[in-house]
Amino acid sequence: MSFMLEEIRQQPDVVRRIISEEWPRVEALAAEIKRREIVFVFVAARGTSNNVAQYAKYVLEIQHGLPVALAAPSVFTLYEAVPHLGPNALVLGISQSGAAPDVTEVVRRARETGALTACITNEPESVLAQAAEFPLLIGAGEEVGVAATKTYTGSLALLGLLSAALDDNHPERLMHLSRAAEAMEKSLGLDEAVHHLVEKYADMSDCVILGRGFNQATTMELALKLTETCYVSAKSYSAADFQHGPIAQVVKGYPCLLFAPDGKAFAPMARLAEKLRAQHPALICFAHDAAFLAGSETAVRIPAAVPEWVSPLVYIVAGQLFTYWLATLKGFDPDCPRGLEKVTQTR
Amino acid sequence: MSFMLEEIRQQPDVVRRIISEEWPRVEALAAEIKRREIVFVFVAARGTSNNVAQYAKYVLEIQHGLPVALAAPSVFTLYEAVPHLGPNALVLGISQSGAAPDVTEVVRRARETGALTACITNEPESVLAQAAEFPLLIGAGEEVGVAATKTYTGSLALLGLLSAALDDNHPERLMHLSRAAEAMEKSLGLDEAVHHLVEKYADMSDCVILGRGFNQATTMELALKLTETCYVSAKSYSAADFQHGPIAQVVKGYPCLLFAPDGKAFAPMARLAEKLRAQHPALICFAHDAAFLAGSETAVRIPAAVPEWVSPLVYIVAGQLFTYWLATLKGFDPDCPRGLEKVTQTR
Repeated sequence: MSFMLEEIRQQPDVVRRIISEEWPRVEALAAEIKRREIVFVFVAARGTSNNVAQYAKYVLEIQHGLPVALAAPSVFTLYEAVPHLGPNALVLGISQSGAAPDVTEVVRRARETGALTACITNEPESVLAQAAEFPLLIGAGEEVGVAATKTYTGSLALLGLLSAALDDNHPERLMHLSRAAEAMEKSLGLDEAVHHLVEKYADMSDCVILGRGFNQATTMELALKLTETCYVSAKSYSAADFQHGPIAQVVKGYPCLLFAPDGKAFAPMARLAEKLRAQHPALICFAHDAAFLAGSETAVRIPAAVPEWVSPLVYIVAGQLFTYWLATLKGFDPDCPRGLEKVTQTR
Repeated sequence: MSFMLEEIRQQPDVVRRIISEEWPRVEALAAEIKRREIVFVFVAARGTSNNVAQYAKYVLEIQHGLPVALAAPSVFTLYEAVPHLGPNALVLGISQSGAAPDVTEVVRRARETGALTACITNEPESVLAQAAEFPLLIGAGEEVGVAATKTYTGSLALLGLLSAALDDNHPERLMHLSRAAEAMEKSLGLDEAVHHLVEKYADMSDCVILGRGFNQATTMELALKLTETCYVSAKSYSAADFQHGPIAQVVKGYPCLLFAPDGKAFAPMARLAEKLRAQHPALICFAHDAAFLAGSETAVRIPAAVPEWVSPLVYIVAGQLFTYWLATLKGFDPDCPRGLEKVTQTR
């Protein structure tokens, strides 16, 4: 069995461990965020971690009213500029390896200006963990597959935990996270079905991946996985931005992957699916709603419904399986993408 | 002649008009930003305007230390959440039509929370212009082509003017902007050369577009233009993010468009080109540096060197011409992309 598939399967346990063991560290950060009266959050990340950052934006803005900016690390590294962040800003670096020089540089510089600093990493001894005052640990064990899977969902879980810790009603949020871990387990049961359905897409060379709101992160992460392990030219769009231009590209049979979990984003996604059907694309829908799925060429029915805000943990599992089986079918080794190493160091 | 080509050619005049006539309005906003002690900026935009927002992030963070967040409008519209912005935040809505309901909603809600509000639009009577306290006007005349060109560079010019107005050394910045308008004029002279060189790429169905720093916006904008008018699956990446995964997709002959203007981003772009050459892609380079261009399969030499921060105004002109001629060569009408209307209303 490949490392990627093995690590996909470890994800529910990684999330459960985070819920049961990382609360004290996360709660300490939440207390500091309240004490320092943080008014905005600045997140630095690259690659998969940048997709985690996208999730952070939705969670912190929607659930806590904290405006979130995604850092452009080159502002710090290439142009040697340091935005005025100051004591009311939280700077959060995300890097599973903790070895990203540019992400670490943002955290270090921000700390010098007096900002509160935290990070999410899988490596407690890394330079990033040392640079930040509050390191949050994924604790997923070594991730051997070059395509990140369990460190991605582990990072989402840490953000979920942070959201719970910032909330007065935290038992409810914690219960949602536990339900997400169970639902991830159930999604792993899609393995055979997904293995079978990708056969139809063996020749897929490009596609778009569409979602909205919390699952914007899911579309970005699946696009990255498909690009790096299947060499598919996959592009992710918010359902709204997609209609501002890129929709022009859709013709008969063009693969469009849609994420439409239950929740606030369901109605606009269903409307987009309707609009797309006029062009007769190959619609591949990931959803729980059976009626919605009935109209798509390919339906991936996510077995368990969860509150929308934790659905990215669950829906990406189906996307990871889709990627894994497509790469295998195309004859690629998903553990060893061409020209990539596990740790990418950019400045 | 198509509207798109006509509007591409109007761009130097649009920028010159902005420099000479929009200063008072821009200066009034700059004075208010200083008076209100604005500490961060929140930009709401969709489609092409979102690429303008990306430029705003680099300009305001690098030149003025103002952290910039790009809004996710669905946070406001779909989830009905309003991040706590408050009196020290500037909220900037960007929409050439001024008719984007989601962008207008962000500005309206932010204004209710006491934030300073401004907008960039081509329509002085639009709902967006009315929602914001400080409307900045592109004044490009009607843009008929569905693919935005002159309103894109006009919006960049307004941001350049704002940067000048925020700066004590504004005569120098204004001179840079004037030089950019001249350099845009010279870039229009690439028309014949670009018309000729796209012939080689008549069958291009997908590509990546790479840049870094200020020209991140250029890569995003060119990707959008190629997608909506040529139906090419074009993906833009920061040169750094690209190396965190998507680079795996590059094989012999794969089209990679690189933007490498003189400046801080030149060295990392030259290193990336070197790294890419090992895979023998079809390198299409946009640069001024002749030595760098000598090694690429296709060289688009931008005639005039300008300071890096205004280079996005100049380099996109070559990209627009590339798009226009490729669409024409492929037999598409660039003025009427499939399934698009000039004003897209998403919520």
